[in-house]
Amino acid sequence: MRIALGIEYNGADFFGWQKQSDRPSVQEAVEQALYKFIGQKINVYVAGRTDTGVHALEQVIHFDTDIVREDFSWVRGMNTFLRKNQKKTISILWAKQVDETFHARFSAIARTYYYILYVGKTSPACFDGQVGYYMHSGTLDVDAMQEGANFLIGRHDFSSFRASICQAKTPIKTMYNIKIQSNDCWYLFEIKANAFLHHMVRNIMGCLITIGANKKPVEWMNQVLLAKSRISAAPTFMACGLYLANIDYQDIDLPQTKPKLPWCLNLIP
Amino acid sequence: MRIALGIEYNGADFFGWQKQSDRPSVQEAVEQALYKFIGQKINVYVAGRTDTGVHALEQVIHFDTDIVREDFSWVRGMNTFLRKNQKKTISILWAKQVDETFHARFSAIARTYYYILYVGKTSPACFDGQVGYYMHSGTLDVDAMQEGANFLIGRHDFSSFRASICQAKTPIKTMYNIKIQSNDCWYLFEIKANAFLHHMVRNIMGCLITIGANKKPVEWMNQVLLAKSRISAAPTFMACGLYLANIDYQDIDLPQTKPKLPWCLNLIP
Repeated sequence: MRIALGIEYNGADFFGWQKQSDRPSVQEAVEQALYKFIGQKINVYVAGRTDTGVHALEQVIHFDTDIVREDFSWVRGMNTFLRKNQKKTISILWAKQVDETFHARFSAIARTYYYILYVGKTSPACFDGQVGYYMHSGTLDVDAMQEGANFLIGRHDFSSFRASICQAKTPIKTMYNIKIQSNDCWYLFEIKANAFLHHMVRNIMGCLITIGANKKPVEWMNQVLLAKSRISAAPTFMACGLYLANIDYQDIDLPQTKPKLPWCLNLIP
Repeated sequence: MRIALGIEYNGADFFGWQKQSDRPSVQEAVEQALYKFIGQKINVYVAGRTDTGVHALEQVIHFDTDIVREDFSWVRGMNTFLRKNQKKTISILWAKQVDETFHARFSAIARTYYYILYVGKTSPACFDGQVGYYMHSGTLDVDAMQEGANFLIGRHDFSSFRASICQAKTPIKTMYNIKIQSNDCWYLFEIKANAFLHHMVRNIMGCLITIGANKKPVEWMNQVLLAKSRISAAPTFMACGLYLANIDYQDIDLPQTKPKLPWCLNLIP
């Protein structure tokens, strides 16, 4: 049978989702916990592979097994072995037996990321590794950033925001929504697309901040998009403020929860 | 001359504020950065010594030196050497030359702590080490906790909430304010007193959660207070959700900032 899991992790301790022979990954930690729980070596499939340092509030994975357990038993059992193995920076949130037509990655119709940014003269020590930081004595222009972001909404060739190592079949993606909010020195970016290219959110963030700091005009975002060339865009912005927040599926009712990001309770409606 | 500094730190990496011969402390890291910046070994004095794992959004320290620098030069210089030495989990926020009658600890008239608590069936992986966690399938009763907390307001003997190793001269302190707010699974406790005994906030937190989870009635808090005995209270609650947020002084204008806790922007008025 096929089991889907919701999973939260702090990316600071891992070299991304993807299993690698020489460095710790979230996938390796999850598969090890699964192995210790049921004694079977099982490959898990993920909705969105996250980079080194990128967090997930609610990633979705699935795997196949002939072992029968109650749904919440998967949560309790895997969390027990995750805790025994390492720091408490990975949590299984929920489990649900699903139809074998479900695939964590290929059934997903949209992904939502949050980017949390702090802007100020000194870096946010308490939240080092968990928020992005832009050193600036003033504020960023949220209206300008939002206008720039609006050029990206819709179906476009996002080659300008694509890392050279990206393995996606096509650079054409559909951006559904970019919403930017701020409160004093804190900024929250909510970005939703059908799928993302490698480094796409972080490259968009670099461009938005460039506009927000008045280093480029709003229209520059459109020029970058139309150039279809990575060298036209700003440098890739830091990973540590980026959170995979939500995966959307069609025609399936998963026990997805509200993202557990404290300050989003008030910032995100 | 005397220099006052505002300082933010993530307590997860340190065995508290106080310098120790065998384990890393915030004080040692700050004094090392100061030594590298100006070439003098200087003792710094702190407003509130924090325990292992406890964070500070705006701690205040002072030190004496004959070296003359612009105020912001202390910030930039010390941050440079803090960054070179270790992770970015300590930031100097501001510096100000003060009168020699000022003392970070003895001039302080009140301290404010925040406690951030997550309540749920699985622990908050993304914020491990930065929020407290109470495993519970329901919510905590905020009204009951607030009523219980109200017994503590005023001048009392807080011996019931005092660690046995506490070195304070007297267990009598004045509690000015305890305010409890919640939003979904997140709880914010704001606790302000003239001064605190060792583990006092964490022992109060243990009692408040016991009441919030309906394990004890509201009036139990008064019984615990009146007992003046540590064994009457709940166990010390975990350190990692505790933030020293603000130090109040009289008759001096320090460049204190708004605490940089993201979610407090909306929760705290």
